[in-house]
Amino acid sequence: MENTTEFPFYSFLSPQDKKIVTENFRTEQIPAGSVIFDSTSCKGVLLVLSGIIRVYILSESGREITLYRLFENDLCTLSVSCIMGKMPMQAMIKADTDCSIATLSNDIFSGLHQKYPGIQQLLFETMNTRLADVMWVVEQVAFRGMDQRIGEFLLSRPSTIIYLTHEEIAAELGTAREVVSRMLKYFEKNGYVELSRGKMKIIDPDGLRTIISGGS
Amino acid sequence: MENTTEFPFYSFLSPQDKKIVTENFRTEQIPAGSVIFDSTSCKGVLLVLSGIIRVYILSESGREITLYRLFENDLCTLSVSCIMGKMPMQAMIKADTDCSIATLSNDIFSGLHQKYPGIQQLLFETMNTRLADVMWVVEQVAFRGMDQRIGEFLLSRPSTIIYLTHEEIAAELGTAREVVSRMLKYFEKNGYVELSRGKMKIIDPDGLRTIISGGS
Repeated sequence: MENTTEFPFYSFLSPQDKKIVTENFRTEQIPAGSVIFDSTSCKGVLLVLSGIIRVYILSESGREITLYRLFENDLCTLSVSCIMGKMPMQAMIKADTDCSIATLSNDIFSGLHQKYPGIQQLLFETMNTRLADVMWVVEQVAFRGMDQRIGEFLLSRPSTIIYLTHEEIAAELGTAREVVSRMLKYFEKNGYVELSRGKMKIIDPDGLRTIISGGS
Repeated sequence: MENTTEFPFYSFLSPQDKKIVTENFRTEQIPAGSVIFDSTSCKGVLLVLSGIIRVYILSESGREITLYRLFENDLCTLSVSCIMGKMPMQAMIKADTDCSIATLSNDIFSGLHQKYPGIQQLLFETMNTRLADVMWVVEQVAFRGMDQRIGEFLLSRPSTIIYLTHEEIAAELGTAREVVSRMLKYFEKNGYVELSRGKMKIIDPDGLRTIISGGS
């Protein structure tokens, strides 16, 4: 078993309870693109050790929209919901990159959760952050135009050269590929981006910022 | 002090703790339309004794979208977030009808929360329900057309005669009044509804159901 000090609640635990966690958690390597679990296959309380996990909704017609992402040391609250049989049906959990995850059985987690106020607090705060994340998505989808959302998404990327397909951007934002393609062509016509096969480059970030702030 | 057995966690408590709750909660009458609290004025953990509370997001331009409603005996998880200084900034909480609410101070609630696993469970489940509610809103806004959403909203009302302004329906669904007016006129032209000053009447619910299911 590898290092468990990464469990976000590990520091709260007594030496005995630390030992229980160390002896009972299970690690797993998940390749990029795999569905980690859905509402019918709960594995226990899940923690991201490394990699990035995407939580999204899938529509009946196969469209996707990202709700939030989990990073290193993040606790997956949906795994807790899943164990309790209360998982929102629409949520999908998939590895964005190769991931290493740790799971702890419900029995052990529940016992610790009851015993340590710090874990109760952590779980509440984590749920609260997720709720804020999903509210942010509502705000974006309900009140912002697709031009603003695509512009903001492009500027939020770590580099000005973006290796994403139009399909992937559409799945991020909950729209159709054609809508993304049309908007990117408009951005290109205005000299904000340069499109080429399999990538795009931001050449006028200020132009995109004008779009985002609602100007034209 | 009036009856507190309505607190959803009251049944878990020892006789002493019941006494503490009874002696310390505070009831308040809130007239319809009042803002109950925002992120700068936390009053304690809030429970709805009677009436309906609406939780919504307000856009910069003054548009609204409903996230969920709280009914009798519902615990307001945003009040818990607020106390912890972790309230999502965008959320607004307003009385839909005249309400009676009970509040319990953070100190007392925290003590009980730490002591009773049943309360921890209740809080987690309540947060989880809210998260599912808000995910449902994302799904609606991202994947369903305004014709479907307005049709569904009309059919979800308790009566076929609906006393709501176009403005109020727009605030429910996160759109502009003009969009609602245009869609209602289209529904009227198709013989699904009858519009008159200050009210509308559903005359062909099956027509609306066809719209909702994505047919034309």
